[in-house]
Amino acid sequence: MTIHRVGIIMNGVTGRMGTNQHLIRSILAIRDQGGVPLGPGETILPDPILVGRNEAKLRALTEAHDLPHYTTDLDACLSDPAYEVYFDALRTDLRPANVRKAIAAGKVIYCEKPTATTTSEALDLYHRALTAGVKHGVVQDKLWLPGMQKLKYLIDTGFFGRLLSVRGEFGYWVFDGFDQPCQRPSWNYRAEDGGGIIVDMFPHWRYLVDGLFGHVEAVSCWATTHVERRVDEQGRAYACTAEDAAYATLRCAGNVVCQINSSWAVRVRRDDLAIFQVDGTRGSAVAGLRDCVVQAYATTPRPLWNPDIPNPIDFYAGWQHVPDNRSYDNAFKAQWTRFLRHIVTGEPFPWGLLEGAKGVQLAERAAESSREGRWVDVEPLA
Amino acid sequence: MTIHRVGIIMNGVTGRMGTNQHLIRSILAIRDQGGVPLGPGETILPDPILVGRNEAKLRALTEAHDLPHYTTDLDACLSDPAYEVYFDALRTDLRPANVRKAIAAGKVIYCEKPTATTTSEALDLYHRALTAGVKHGVVQDKLWLPGMQKLKYLIDTGFFGRLLSVRGEFGYWVFDGFDQPCQRPSWNYRAEDGGGIIVDMFPHWRYLVDGLFGHVEAVSCWATTHVERRVDEQGRAYACTAEDAAYATLRCAGNVVCQINSSWAVRVRRDDLAIFQVDGTRGSAVAGLRDCVVQAYATTPRPLWNPDIPNPIDFYAGWQHVPDNRSYDNAFKAQWTRFLRHIVTGEPFPWGLLEGAKGVQLAERAAESSREGRWVDVEPLA
Amino acid sequence: MTIHRVGIIMNGVTGRMGTNQHLIRSILAIRDQGGVPLGPGETILPDPILVGRNEAKLRALTEAHDLPHYTTDLDACLSDPAYEVYFDALRTDLRPANVRKAIAAGKVIYCEKPTATTTSEALDLYHRALTAGVKHGVVQDKLWLPGMQKLKYLIDTGFFGRLLSVRGEFGYWVFDGFDQPCQRPSWNYRAEDGGGIIVDMFPHWRYLVDGLFGHVEAVSCWATTHVERRVDEQGRAYACTAEDAAYATLRCAGNVVCQINSSWAVRVRRDDLAIFQVDGTRGSAVAGLRDCVVQAYATTPRPLWNPDIPNPIDFYAGWQHVPDNRSYDNAFKAQWTRFLRHIVTGEPFPWGLLEGAKGVQLAERAAESSREGRWVDVEPLA
Amino acid sequence: MTIHRVGIIMNGVTGRMGTNQHLIRSILAIRDQGGVPLGPGETILPDPILVGRNEAKLRALTEAHDLPHYTTDLDACLSDPAYEVYFDALRTDLRPANVRKAIAAGKVIYCEKPTATTTSEALDLYHRALTAGVKHGVVQDKLWLPGMQKLKYLIDTGFFGRLLSVRGEFGYWVFDGFDQPCQRPSWNYRAEDGGGIIVDMFPHWRYLVDGLFGHVEAVSCWATTHVERRVDEQGRAYACTAEDAAYATLRCAGNVVCQINSSWAVRVRRDDLAIFQVDGTRGSAVAGLRDCVVQAYATTPRPLWNPDIPNPIDFYAGWQHVPDNRSYDNAFKAQWTRFLRHIVTGEPFPWGLLEGAKGVQLAERAAESSREGRWVDVEPLA
Repeated sequence: MTIHRVGIIMNGVTGRMGTNQHLIRSILAIRDQGGVPLGPGETILPDPILVGRNEAKLRALTEAHDLPHYTTDLDACLSDPAYEVYFDALRTDLRPANVRKAIAAGKVIYCEKPTATTTSEALDLYHRALTAGVKHGVVQDKLWLPGMQKLKYLIDTGFFGRLLSVRGEFGYWVFDGFDQPCQRPSWNYRAEDGGGIIVDMFPHWRYLVDGLFGHVEAVSCWATTHVERRVDEQGRAYACTAEDAAYATLRCAGNVVCQINSSWAVRVRRDDLAIFQVDGTRGSAVAGLRDCVVQAYATTPRPLWNPDIPNPIDFYAGWQHVPDNRSYDNAFKAQWTRFLRHIVTGEPFPWGLLEGAKGVQLAERAAESSREGRWVDVEPLA
Repeated sequence: MTIHRVGIIMNGVTGRMGTNQHLIRSILAIRDQGGVPLGPGETILPDPILVGRNEAKLRALTEAHDLPHYTTDLDACLSDPAYEVYFDALRTDLRPANVRKAIAAGKVIYCEKPTATTTSEALDLYHRALTAGVKHGVVQDKLWLPGMQKLKYLIDTGFFGRLLSVRGEFGYWVFDGFDQPCQRPSWNYRAEDGGGIIVDMFPHWRYLVDGLFGHVEAVSCWATTHVERRVDEQGRAYACTAEDAAYATLRCAGNVVCQINSSWAVRVRRDDLAIFQVDGTRGSAVAGLRDCVVQAYATTPRPLWNPDIPNPIDFYAGWQHVPDNRSYDNAFKAQWTRFLRHIVTGEPFPWGLLEGAKGVQLAERAAESSREGRWVDVEPLA
Repeated sequence: MTIHRVGIIMNGVTGRMGTNQHLIRSILAIRDQGGVPLGPGETILPDPILVGRNEAKLRALTEAHDLPHYTTDLDACLSDPAYEVYFDALRTDLRPANVRKAIAAGKVIYCEKPTATTTSEALDLYHRALTAGVKHGVVQDKLWLPGMQKLKYLIDTGFFGRLLSVRGEFGYWVFDGFDQPCQRPSWNYRAEDGGGIIVDMFPHWRYLVDGLFGHVEAVSCWATTHVERRVDEQGRAYACTAEDAAYATLRCAGNVVCQINSSWAVRVRRDDLAIFQVDGTRGSAVAGLRDCVVQAYATTPRPLWNPDIPNPIDFYAGWQHVPDNRSYDNAFKAQWTRFLRHIVTGEPFPWGLLEGAKGVQLAERAAESSREGRWVDVEPLA
Repeated sequence: MTIHRVGIIMNGVTGRMGTNQHLIRSILAIRDQGGVPLGPGETILPDPILVGRNEAKLRALTEAHDLPHYTTDLDACLSDPAYEVYFDALRTDLRPANVRKAIAAGKVIYCEKPTATTTSEALDLYHRALTAGVKHGVVQDKLWLPGMQKLKYLIDTGFFGRLLSVRGEFGYWVFDGFDQPCQRPSWNYRAEDGGGIIVDMFPHWRYLVDGLFGHVEAVSCWATTHVERRVDEQGRAYACTAEDAAYATLRCAGNVVCQINSSWAVRVRRDDLAIFQVDGTRGSAVAGLRDCVVQAYATTPRPLWNPDIPNPIDFYAGWQHVPDNRSYDNAFKAQWTRFLRHIVTGEPFPWGLLEGAKGVQLAERAAESSREGRWVDVEPLA
């Protein structure tokens, strides 16, 4: 048995997302299954060391999961050749400096999105990695959601014919905290703390749209704050200074239009918390996080407009579920698996720091569009 | 029994819409029920004369419905004091000249939308009617659809709390004619013939949004032609020169955002051919042409984002139908009834030529926004 | 970590209710979760000693649950400063004497309802606690049932508009023991043993009505014994001398009428063993122990009375479940948690001996109403 | 063929109820089916003459239904021996004088409820009919509703064992007219016009309870006006001076308790607009206007009280529909049929003016109970 050990410095995984998705459901899950199999008798085994500032939290986390290593000394880690990869899940404003240090130390880079707070800083990270010749990746988990994988399968197998348009709806009702607690952190609603739905969601929309429908060429966006006061974790009312909704239209390569609404002030009457309806000449699909339904050209109904009677067509019944013909790993783990293979075998991994920078760019351009009341080009990067 | 006879010159009702909605389901239906009741022993009886250019069609129509009067001589009609009202359902480009003549003849005006092809011409009609002191109305049928009436009831009874946003989706798949006939007239898809989805639908959106959600203050729109070639009524392929989809965002009084997609190249996975989802602080509704479902604040679920499992909430089950607590007349007939009462009793009728001009204006501004790639103000008229 | 230990004398928890609800699901469950958290690094840890007369039972119970302390010597306990709280779940007729002793010993009081067998004795307990300056609480568990918490949420968020009326239905079929065993203790059906549905249930109705709908001002009640003979635990038939049903109407502050039927001789065709239907100007709700359904003003149907055809309205379909937007602790544990916080932090706890006396009062006044065949005022206490 | 013609003076059938139920669905329906069959070759044929004050209405009604006779001269009718029966569906305050005249004229009497506005006047009618030796009947339609017939079948066939209790719920939400029209006449809500739910419904409760469950011996009632302002048929707001809800408990022969709530301010979560739940030692039933479900002793579940989990019993599933083993005539027609047979063949008809007086009596005693805040005996009449 050949075991390719890959040492990974995991910085910032004491937060909810880092602990659950990256540590437990990705790295530990891969270890539990015996690593990433490469072939008969060959496997990749990730070996993490947790890094952070709060030693008590780190100790509790390593003990809870029977992990041998943790440290509060990032620099020592970065100079330790036993750890090949630097993974970063810190707050966005802390990320660039640490990633730069890791690149300088020659580490392979893997990090959460957004990779930086400005496009130019995000692009700089990419150029540094390029110059240093280190491999790099950025978390783009939603691409590996079963619903998005099904969409990709439909695209790859020509189901849609020519793509025409995409309607995206993301969001749900986030309580304001007065009558029942708000179900998201209060900093999300304060611009001064890096909040806002654009910086949170548009990096996702970028890699999904680029990866599935066509490269984004221009964006028009209207951002607004529907709910003006909320109650924070300490029970104090505060003014919401960040937008909680963004209504955007993207023009993409191939004349595809993506109209995407993102909102924390909307009630959900649709298949899932996030859905994409994709229409093409030969068929359409509506994909949620896990499910996907389709209507082919052959089964497209021919409705008549007659408001004098209830429409005789049941517009939900004419869609069919794409079957679960394979099992779907956790989306974060699926991308980690691809990245570990990329490190060890060199197989392609197109989701690197340049793509990360594009995500930051779309958020930046969307905010600009909303401020200036006009379409803004999303110029090619790199 | 006091009978108030109202003579109506009906110009252009040999077309499908004019015949079905205005003649048969409105004027004839009102006659069949004995007129518009005003009180014990008092009624309004509309008495139509059909006007057009094609005598054969007119004769066939009057015979089919046992109507005594038709003519091809509009001018004679306009000078006949027995006919108090001029109704116009001609092609838009023919409408203004005829309406101007009718105003000059002192007739009460009632006409289809759009009232003209440009805002200035539409506004001119309004000013002429004002100067001439004649009553006037413009068809705004969708306001009387049961679904829209239910929305209005919800708004009037405070169901929504403060209105936040509206999502409108209009459209369906219009076949291109190659494999099965196109279900709409070909001129709809040719700019040179007055086609395009903006001029067709945005006058409707204007009075619905103004009447239900808040006065439109600015529009951003992206129009495109998804299907580039279609086959016409004679089986000939032609190039589509008018847009078949428009993705628009409207900013309205009270900081309400209305995001409305209109498309003839979309498949329908929603409650109806046209729906409006309205979200407010205290509740939300999704209204179609006839039905309307609601979700109150008290029954708003609290979803968790966890793509690792199917969402445990059924996002359709948490909505409830607004019951049909009254019967709903045909929408055109309902507005005719209100207009006839306005003529005879003077009761208010706020849906006149100024509102008609506003509809033309929104279409004009939306097209401008799409051409120039920016938000365009929808300035107050009159 | 600061741990606030609270020593609790638990008297009478060898019975079913005391063992299951107060000991296992409340005090032990709180210990198992690490106490009642007060903030970072601070917690309240209840430390119980079981008191009773039957040493064998006490020993068995403490061993079964790994508890260190039990005793048959209540007086010794009461003089032990290590135990701050006296909890009483004895038979009602034994309760007042023990509570008086505990008050005299300066203990914090927490006890089951009814707090005494007469209003004056119950009120006397309150005045003694007041004079002694000890904190006190009375079990009012049903306030913390999920169904009642949902009702409270609806009230607090204004769902009902103005409250009009409440219909309560409590009860189920209690077998008489001849064909299958009676599922309740036989003393419940003997007046001479303190039985009867009024004394059992009306203390609950009092705090629910006072706490949710409006202070009770007068009561009219008819008590009767539907099932006249039952079979006891030893298989002997006996005459039922206590009422097994009470039909009551309460007039409450704000002109709210609460009509509440309680019966052990009724079969259940309703959502739960106990339900409250609440009707208000803007909406209605029907709450059971855990679930709650609502019908808003906007979705209120408009039925027609026409017995010649089946009613076209499905009267169950027009109601919607209030979602479980939070998790609900065991109701007894929820109140214990509040009481422990009250002891340690002084936060308000309005459910004390005065409220307990009010519960006794309502039962007393209801019985009086039934005997005298008239409305009886429920005069303000204290 | 022997045809027994029965001439019927129908006074006051130009109102909605009189026209629909008594004229069209009863007398005309009987005529249309060829009369009431008495046996081979023998039938009873009712022959109505319509009487009223508004000649235009009478003429319209007789023409619409091809009836030969109408008149505005009641006295002439009463002295015409061709008409054997006097039927009265006038307003209650007009009824007694006309019935007295008809009795004096020797007519058979059939009339709507309430038979008078006071018990003594109602009783006087009974005594006059007795003295005059004329047959008499009072409308008690609800006894012939399919749901009540099924209850009667269950009682007659011993399903319930010993009857214990009855819960009646009548009512629905009557809109106040501000947002949508009130669906009942405004006089129902004004005491000065004879309105109020007690006088409307308690005569029904009397014959149903007497006829099905046991003679009423005493009543306790609380009447209140939940909705204080409504809008009338002319769109004018008015103060509601009559009660719109009455919460009553009846003690009946055999120690049966009937608890009956009547309300026009309640939303419906039950099987029908009016239901009676009947509990007996051997089984229970819940009957609506048409349907009836039962739960037998053998299938009675044994619920446990455990609010920590959702109750595992579906309390609706454990009931079974009584099948429609026969067809049910319109309830009014069914009683007319019985009365016509009573007139011609002398078969018993126990629903006469004495029963009518009892209905008035219950309404009177209930109102008295509410005013005086005590149980009021319902003394035996006659």
